[in-house]
Amino acid sequence: MTTGVDLAGQPHQRTSVLLRRWLAETHTPVAEGPLRLTVGSLRLRTDVVYDSPTGAHGFGPIQVLDATDGPVEVAEPALLAAACSADARARALPDAPINAAGSGSLLDWMVDALPRRAVDPLALPEDLVAVARSVSDAAEAQRWLSSHVEGRLLPAVRGWEPGDATGATAALLTRGALAVIGLLGRRGVVHEADLLAALADRLRAVAEAYPDVEWLVGHWLTSPTLTDLAALNGSRLRYRAESGEIRVQGVPFEVRNPLRSEVPNVPGVPIPELGAGWSLRPVRVEGADGGPDVELVHRWMNNGHVAVNWDQAWPVAQWRDELAGQLAGQHSVPCIVGLDGRDVGYVELYRVQRDKLARCYSYEPHDLGVHIAIGEPDAIGRGVGSALLRAVAEGLLAADRECGRVVAEPNVHNGASVGAFGKAGFDRAAEVGLPNKNSALMVFARPASGE
Amino acid sequence: MTTGVDLAGQPHQRTSVLLRRWLAETHTPVAEGPLRLTVGSLRLRTDVVYDSPTGAHGFGPIQVLDATDGPVEVAEPALLAAACSADARARALPDAPINAAGSGSLLDWMVDALPRRAVDPLALPEDLVAVARSVSDAAEAQRWLSSHVEGRLLPAVRGWEPGDATGATAALLTRGALAVIGLLGRRGVVHEADLLAALADRLRAVAEAYPDVEWLVGHWLTSPTLTDLAALNGSRLRYRAESGEIRVQGVPFEVRNPLRSEVPNVPGVPIPELGAGWSLRPVRVEGADGGPDVELVHRWMNNGHVAVNWDQAWPVAQWRDELAGQLAGQHSVPCIVGLDGRDVGYVELYRVQRDKLARCYSYEPHDLGVHIAIGEPDAIGRGVGSALLRAVAEGLLAADRECGRVVAEPNVHNGASVGAFGKAGFDRAAEVGLPNKNSALMVFARPASGE
Repeated sequence: MTTGVDLAGQPHQRTSVLLRRWLAETHTPVAEGPLRLTVGSLRLRTDVVYDSPTGAHGFGPIQVLDATDGPVEVAEPALLAAACSADARARALPDAPINAAGSGSLLDWMVDALPRRAVDPLALPEDLVAVARSVSDAAEAQRWLSSHVEGRLLPAVRGWEPGDATGATAALLTRGALAVIGLLGRRGVVHEADLLAALADRLRAVAEAYPDVEWLVGHWLTSPTLTDLAALNGSRLRYRAESGEIRVQGVPFEVRNPLRSEVPNVPGVPIPELGAGWSLRPVRVEGADGGPDVELVHRWMNNGHVAVNWDQAWPVAQWRDELAGQLAGQHSVPCIVGLDGRDVGYVELYRVQRDKLARCYSYEPHDLGVHIAIGEPDAIGRGVGSALLRAVAEGLLAADRECGRVVAEPNVHNGASVGAFGKAGFDRAAEVGLPNKNSALMVFARPASGE
Repeated sequence: MTTGVDLAGQPHQRTSVLLRRWLAETHTPVAEGPLRLTVGSLRLRTDVVYDSPTGAHGFGPIQVLDATDGPVEVAEPALLAAACSADARARALPDAPINAAGSGSLLDWMVDALPRRAVDPLALPEDLVAVARSVSDAAEAQRWLSSHVEGRLLPAVRGWEPGDATGATAALLTRGALAVIGLLGRRGVVHEADLLAALADRLRAVAEAYPDVEWLVGHWLTSPTLTDLAALNGSRLRYRAESGEIRVQGVPFEVRNPLRSEVPNVPGVPIPELGAGWSLRPVRVEGADGGPDVELVHRWMNNGHVAVNWDQAWPVAQWRDELAGQLAGQHSVPCIVGLDGRDVGYVELYRVQRDKLARCYSYEPHDLGVHIAIGEPDAIGRGVGSALLRAVAEGLLAADRECGRVVAEPNVHNGASVGAFGKAGFDRAAEVGLPNKNSALMVFARPASGE
């Protein structure tokens, strides 16, 4: 186990709080070792010295980089807060609450909070912070966990109005026991994995003893994600009340569930059959240069209208390797789509469970996802995209009878794409933060009865 | 001479740049020793270790204070930038450019500037910075000044289109020789006063030798203020171009002229006679408690409608001392105004030259100013204020035949007051920053011909 460390000093503590939140809210994968990232227009590097399953990561000095990746100086908390605010505003649509005049910014909070010595825009209840600071070894942590589940969590769960699993999760679990476990792990007092396993055991016993709470505790034990509160990256955030006073109102988002132990095995992506007029085939990679399919995908990806959204205008050799890599795994299948005998577009079909989207919403094991590019410019804008999306979604649902949803995640700023998914029958279910964009989670659900 | 010092490290340099600019742009008086100030909602303290006649002050650590004036921690530059932006936005009207959506903030500049290692939102030309860094003693400074005036300043002045004194002043003088002199003074290389006297001598020689530049050089030698460029506190500031890119566009403002050696002596404030129906008398301070006039002013100042704008709802003893102090000096005269035999309001008449406004615009020696409060609530809102203001302005112009202007400086947010001045014949000439507000500079000019 790596012992988590905090560098001395309030400023590092403040930047670390912000960085942890930004990483969680943008669903950015974290691993021990060097980490480079871009927040708004600010490029940063740090070392992850403690990689936490609950997101309570520990960092070495967090440095601002110049244009050539050279460290300029240690990032100040207010600078990082400014970058986070600019980033969140740019990700969100112009009419989102966070972009409203008078919504304030994280900086307004910080200017207000610093004289009060407040460090976290969404601080935990003080008694939990006290526990996290005072518990001194693993045995004491286990005793605290036991008393917390019996004396506090169980009564609160039994008293919660059934149905509101997301609200209950944020209030009772992610901002309760899980946050404390993370702080103890970073302090080096416990192995988080041990305490998480103990918590899961206790929750299983609770669910068995009290069937009336299974609706919530079962969710905690099995859901791929759990609801937490965001303070940096939700388009619905505001930092000022209508009255003008500073008030950070957290908004819900989903984080990976560290209590879930078993991930069901699902087969790879099925190849759908599309409707009349359409054809679909996996890309063929042949020979040293990849062959004609690779050349075609490479050409499409370098067309301006595709490149601006996909940002993958790579050389042909890189596309050859990318496509060969996808074909060798179970995550996604790259395909070429034809219409009336002519190749017009590229789709990637993927299992959500194996995709970055798995961190973003409570997917079902068989959920499938789709990325799409109409490569031929003259095939755009006459409903071809939405017709193709409907054909692909219906084809996938037919090909995997256990799949209940086909999803996609276009950038919220890509109104044409969001509109095409909508026209194809996808519903906009949520807005999710990813490392470089906010995406509209678009969901095409299997019709409720028959087909 | 106090040797200016800069604490080691970029962050202190950055906060110092911002603090210097904020002090200059809000016309805040500075003297060596402790300095407390409030920027937006942020309360700060520092020690002024070098008090510069050109505004190039040097500071000790700049600390954030908590609610009980205890130091919390050293202010980060980005935090101070955030506070300055919030302050500038709050001072300005909602429809000012700085409050426009997309105008950006000083923080946007800082996030953009830090990777470029830029420190000042309105940096000097690089060759002048190099001079300010490299000159090593007073003799070398004098030689540089000589060559600068002959080789650079004079050609530039002679080539400038006559008439635009404010533009020429900022471009050639305040952001030229004066800035370099300040930097050399803070470095301890020169006594600024010596170099300023030498510059004034050279400018006098230039004006004598080249009558065609007297319009500009004469202004530099005699004007009470000189134009500089603001980056923190102008309501017309924007930090983003319409295209969205970061671009700090400085806006003109006036600073005290350190080249002006003689301040003409002017008599104290004359007591005007007002028109029919009006009366005006200086406040009488009598006896231990001040007597009935002091009591009256104290009562008015504690009425809500006056207190909200004057912020002087003091105890009666404090008002007695304040009024006695004013009556003992030549700066201002406190008066009670009557209408049709009834005391209705309070005015303070002042010589601009002796007032804080003297730092804010190029006043003439005999300019007079007025503060007004209608103390009796039932005398408000029927044109009484504007009628009184016109009567006072005309009375002052009649009482001092050398006075060409009567001025006032209501808060730009006090629309009722700004409107009353306008109705009374005052023109809105400028918006000026003061330590706790942006004021509309309202000017009642003597009619051009006769009277």
